[in-house]
This record gives sequence, C-alpha cells and structure tokens, in this order.
Amino acid sequence: MRYASRIDCLADKSLLNAFEIVETADMISFSAGFPSSETYPLEAIKDSFIKVIEESGKEALSYCSTSGYIRLREIIGTRLEEKFGLKYSIDEIIITSGSQQGLDMSGMLFVNKGDVVLFENPSYLGAVNSLRAHEAKLVAIDIDSDGICIDSLKKALEKHGENVKMIYVNPDFQNPTGRSWSHSRRLEFMEIMGQYDIPILEDAAYAELSFERSTERPLAYYDKHDQVIYLGTFSKTFCPGLRVAWLCAPKNIMEKYLLLKNAADLSSSAIAQRQMAYYLDHYSLDSHIEWITGIYKQRRDLMAKLIDEKFPNTVRYKNPGGGLFIWLELPAGKDGRELLKRALKEKVSFIPGTSFYPAGDRHNEIRLNFSNMKPEKIIEGMSKLAEITKEYLKESTV
Amino acid sequence: MRYASRIDCLADKSLLNAFEIVETADMISFSAGFPSSETYPLEAIKDSFIKVIEESGKEALSYCSTSGYIRLREIIGTRLEEKFGLKYSIDEIIITSGSQQGLDMSGMLFVNKGDVVLFENPSYLGAVNSLRAHEAKLVAIDIDSDGICIDSLKKALEKHGENVKMIYVNPDFQNPTGRSWSHSRRLEFMEIMGQYDIPILEDAAYAELSFERSTERPLAYYDKHDQVIYLGTFSKTFCPGLRVAWLCAPKNIMEKYLLLKNAADLSSSAIAQRQMAYYLDHYSLDSHIEWITGIYKQRRDLMAKLIDEKFPNTVRYKNPGGGLFIWLELPAGKDGRELLKRALKEKVSFIPGTSFYPAGDRHNEIRLNFSNMKPEKIIEGMSKLAEITKEYLKESTV
Repeated sequence: MRYASRIDCLADKSLLNAFEIVETADMISFSAGFPSSETYPLEAIKDSFIKVIEESGKEALSYCSTSGYIRLREIIGTRLEEKFGLKYSIDEIIITSGSQQGLDMSGMLFVNKGDVVLFENPSYLGAVNSLRAHEAKLVAIDIDSDGICIDSLKKALEKHGENVKMIYVNPDFQNPTGRSWSHSRRLEFMEIMGQYDIPILEDAAYAELSFERSTERPLAYYDKHDQVIYLGTFSKTFCPGLRVAWLCAPKNIMEKYLLLKNAADLSSSAIAQRQMAYYLDHYSLDSHIEWITGIYKQRRDLMAKLIDEKFPNTVRYKNPGGGLFIWLELPAGKDGRELLKRALKEKVSFIPGTSFYPAGDRHNEIRLNFSNMKPEKIIEGMSKLAEITKEYLKESTV
Repeated sequence: MRYASRIDCLADKSLLNAFEIVETADMISFSAGFPSSETYPLEAIKDSFIKVIEESGKEALSYCSTSGYIRLREIIGTRLEEKFGLKYSIDEIIITSGSQQGLDMSGMLFVNKGDVVLFENPSYLGAVNSLRAHEAKLVAIDIDSDGICIDSLKKALEKHGENVKMIYVNPDFQNPTGRSWSHSRRLEFMEIMGQYDIPILEDAAYAELSFERSTERPLAYYDKHDQVIYLGTFSKTFCPGLRVAWLCAPKNIMEKYLLLKNAADLSSSAIAQRQMAYYLDHYSLDSHIEWITGIYKQRRDLMAKLIDEKFPNTVRYKNPGGGLFIWLELPAGKDGRELLKRALKEKVSFIPGTSFYPAGDRHNEIRLNFSNMKPEKIIEGMSKLAEITKEYLKESTV
C-alpha cells in the first residue's frame, strides 16, 4: 500500500506509547499528563448528564453546530474575560474535541509541507506530533527560566524569514518543564512577534493550575495584531474524558477554522458540551480548581522533598509554580530512556525528555507528573526511582 | 495572515451551512442526515451513563487509549461478524469521533497534494469536503441503478493510473441517492480493484438501515488483497450526539491510522465509548434498529406517496430500500439551489444536489431526508414543496 509522505514524519511513537501504557498498568505512573482521577466530581457530572438528558435529550444527542454549543461558548467567553482580561465574542470561540484537535487544525490551517514552525525546546510532544503530521519543518527555540529566549527567537526569524508559518508556545507551567514565562518576557516576545505576520499558537492548557495567587496575563491579552490563536481546555482543570476544549481566534481566521472543523469531524459531542455547560452554570469550577490545585501543590511539595532527600545531588530540577510536571535533569551523558527501561522493570513509569525535543537531540532529562498518584504512591515510586537512578548514575562514573 | 494552500480547496460551505441551519430552525427540515431524534432511547442512554459513572467513573472520565475502549471494539467485532460475515480482530478496529474523522484520517493517510481520489458521482459531501482539505484531485465515477459504473471506473483507472491513491464508495443506501449496489456489481468492482494497489474506503454508515429482510454483503467481505478500509458508525442507528464510530483496516494499515488518530485528538471520549458499550451489553441495538427502520419505512412510504400525488410528473425519483434519503430529480435545466431559496422562505429546507457532485457540475437534483420529520410535518412540508416546485417548473416552461 502506498501512503502519503506525511506518514514518514510520524515515526516517533513516544506519545502513542505513553497513552497505550495506561490501560495495562498496575504500575506507579508518573508518565501521563492527567489530572488526578480521584478529583473528578463524579456526582456533579452524573447530575449534569441526567439534567441535560431530561431537559434537552433530543438536541443533546443530535449533531451539534460546527462551532459548538452556544451557551458553552458564552460561558467560556465570560470566564476568559474575568480571569484573564481576554475579550472574545462568541463568534471567535469554537469548541474542539480536546486541545489536540485545535493543534491539529492549526497545522492544517497554516502549514504547507516544508514550512517552518517554531517551537520551544523542549515542547509538548502532542503539538510536535501533530505538526509533524503536516510535514512542518520544526525549528527549536531555546528557553531559559524566564521563558522563550529572545535571542534564539530573533535568530530563527532572521534565518527562516518568510518560511516561518507559525510559532507554538506554552507560556504557563509548560509541558514538559513546568516553567512559566515572566511578565517582561511576554511583552518582549509580543513586541518582536508583532513585527511579523506569523500566527502565534498559545496553548494555555495549564494556565489555571497555578499554586500561587496571581498568574501572568496570556499572550493573547497583549495581541495588537490579531495574530494569537488561544487554546484552552477543561481536560486539566476538570476531566479529560469529555474531550471538551476551545480555540479562540480573530473572526477572519475563525472562518477558516470552521471549514476545517467541519471536515475533521463535523462537530464535537453535543451531549458532552451541554453537560459541561450545565456544570459551569450550576456548580463552581473555580472552587473545584482551588481544591485540586491545593492537592497538586501538596504532591508537588512531596515529590520535590523526595528528590531533595533521596536523589543524588547531581540530579537537578526547578520547582514549578503550578501545572502537573517536574522536569528532572540527569547529569550530562545520561539518558532518560535508559532510566525508563530500568524503572519499568520496577513498575514505575515516566516520560523520557527526548520525546519533547522536536529534534530528539537531548536525552538527559525526564518528565515526572505529580498530580496523578496519591501521596503513598509518590513516596513508593520516587523511592524506587531514587534507587534506580543512584545505581544508574554510579555506572556512569565507572 | 498567510494560510496553507489546502484552505483554498475548502471554499464550498454547503455542508457547513447545512449544519449551521439546525440550531436556528423552526423550519420543516428535510436537509440534514439525522436519524429521528424522537427515536433516541433516552432512558437507556441515561441508565448507561449512570452505570458507567458508578462502576468506572474515574477511568471513564480519563483519557482513553488511542485505539479505543477494548470492550467496545470487541462488541463491534462480534456484530460485524454476525451481521456481515466480516472477520476483524480487535487490533484491526479503531474507535473514531464519528465516521467523518475516519474519512479525514484516510485522506491524511493516503493522499498527497494533487493525488487522485475516485468518488461516486454524486457522493457524500462530507467525504468530498474532507478529501478537498487534503488537496486531492477529485475524479467522479458515474453510477447507475446497480451501483458504480464499471466502464467509467475502468476509464478513470486507466487515465489516472498510478496517481489514483484511493477510492471512496458508499454501497448501501448511499448518501445522497439512497441507492444500493447489486450483488454482481459488488463482485465485479472488487475483481477490478483487486488488480490495483489502491485502498478502497467503504463507508457503511447506512448499511444497517435496510427496510427489507436481507442486505448485500459489504465489499470488505470480498476483499482478497487487504485493500478495504471499512467505516461504520452508531450515528445513524443509535444517535449522532455521542460521536462514536469505528474504522476497520488490516493490521499493517491500522498501525498508521493509530499514529494519525493520536495526532488528531489523542483519543475519542472514554465515557461515550463506555456508555455505548454498556448499552450494547445490556440492551438490544438490533431491536432498536428494527423499530426505527419500521418508522423510517413508513416515512419513506409517506414521502414517496406525496411525491407521486402532489409533484409534477416531470419530477422523478427511485424508491430507496433503506437509509434516510430520497433523491429527487427535477427536469434538466432546473436548479435545486434556486428551489431551496424559495423553499426556505416557506420554512422548508433540504440539500441541493449540486453539493454532492465533486465537480459541482450538476444542479437539477435535491436530497430529501425522510427520517427526521414526523408524518404531519412530512405532509405539511412536502405539500408546500410540491406547490413551490410546481410554480418553479411552470416558470421554466415559459
């Protein structure tokens, strides 16, 4: 059978495997980017479903409009304004089946084969994968503790010029590193990008999972040139199983997204959207988020403490201010993939850092999820992992 | 903003508009391809949801594996064998978010820009749209009352040779014409296609909606060369709102689909899949289908009777043996789009035939859905439409 050329670009199965692990596992998993499933508000979700079926079952089980359920888009618009100062009209918000679909559609919309897409280095591998599927040339931009490196960005923009068709960024509690961009870095970034006619894909999946009182404004807030596409989701703050996320874009761009959404799957699940809207109208997502971030903060603290106490001090990390991940750096020359092999034998899993580098050229880091395991499992898993790491690092010194 | 070249191929908004109509309407709609919403088994769906939440809420609201919920794939495999003699292992079945996603992924998998894809003429416009999005060159193959025309197929295969990368067909109660391929036509088609290394995308969305006792075997049943990709869905037999459909393909091809599904949206909704599986395990979908096809058959009969009685006899149609549509042919030179304009003023809608022609070059047909409106609405809408049609045809004779 002859396949389209894009298939060759999808060889890296890292993410696929990460998800395929889930169903089998009796293991302690620090791998996937899940919220903690014991936080899902089951009763509220059940109640919402029942109410939607009883109040509007027929509509809820039919096709939805391509752009999505109007009431849900209204609520999302209001939340975005209240929380982040973003002003999107209903026509500038579309519901997607998870943020991943928003990424995929953005590749469809902006990227021809061979076009350059800029990424943070490292970056969310689902975005990397979806852009690979559109045969983008992935160009990595360094990041430091304040966010994307402006020098590296400028160089890439100069070098690739007109060929740059999109930049994908994840400024809040980034997946995989947990880092957030500073205020000044955001301004600097938007100032420079404003000089180019290049869409900025801002993935705000973790923006609401802050462990501190205040969060930086999104890039979209500083957008003077209608160039930011803003992606949000309920997968990290509520639950991923409903597959309800959203994409905001200026109206003229949104028209194109609608065509693509229609070609991709006609519409997202009507019932899931109505359920979500019912929940948002009758319960408090904000209280829920406050509660889960409290739990996640404790788990982050626990994991960090265990790293400090039990891991060799050549292993480094930076404490994230929110989100779901700690990014662990092994000494140079070490390989997170090798560490994973050994950890899996002891029923502990995580994602090796290699997968998050568009060029796949750095190996000595790993991504640890801290949201998904209960404290006793974090203690057990991290203790095991500390031992395995010690052994592995010892070998290296030989 | 600069867009990818594929966006230019998506100019036809017909389908999009068809779906955007739904939410606004107080109209009598013969347009969309819905099952009848009053047939949705609301109580059973509610019960299934509650049971799934109570028995496995946490898993059901998390991410699902990329390939889909195992139990659901098992049930689908068993049903396909019992009903159609198809033998697919679990690994050869993937759950998609509606069949539309299976179409989109098939374009991703097989079609490079400029490649030829063969279509029946007319054909399902969602498939046309999704292949347009991949910049396929669409080549239309004539159909007659027995199915795809073998001569026309042979000519296209000879003319376009190696450039043909896929053929999309809908052999059972086709959308839009309602026609089914005869037994001998199926065999002839598979015989010829077997000589080419070209994937056959068999869309079986309406296969179970037969008004007669027996249905023809699917093309996949006669596949000796592992070249059929088989698409099925619960959207037409159960309800579209859950967005649960499936795609079957030989194992080596399925591996590639998994990569694409992962890039497209990670996985389909876990809760919707489990709900569907619960329903299939605890209720009888077959009884439900028997019931709804009984209703649809009555509505088809009613619509056909009204056409016979009230429409000018220059308007022709062929009674479909199943499915959701009657395909109405106006006299040559007439235009279904013009008829729609007039009908909309009287609050009656349908889809003009033009949209179903990949080349958009035939205009004198319209697609009427008979499943979605209750008898009294069918009578009211068809009576209005008959008057409007009479008026319109009168003008033409001037």
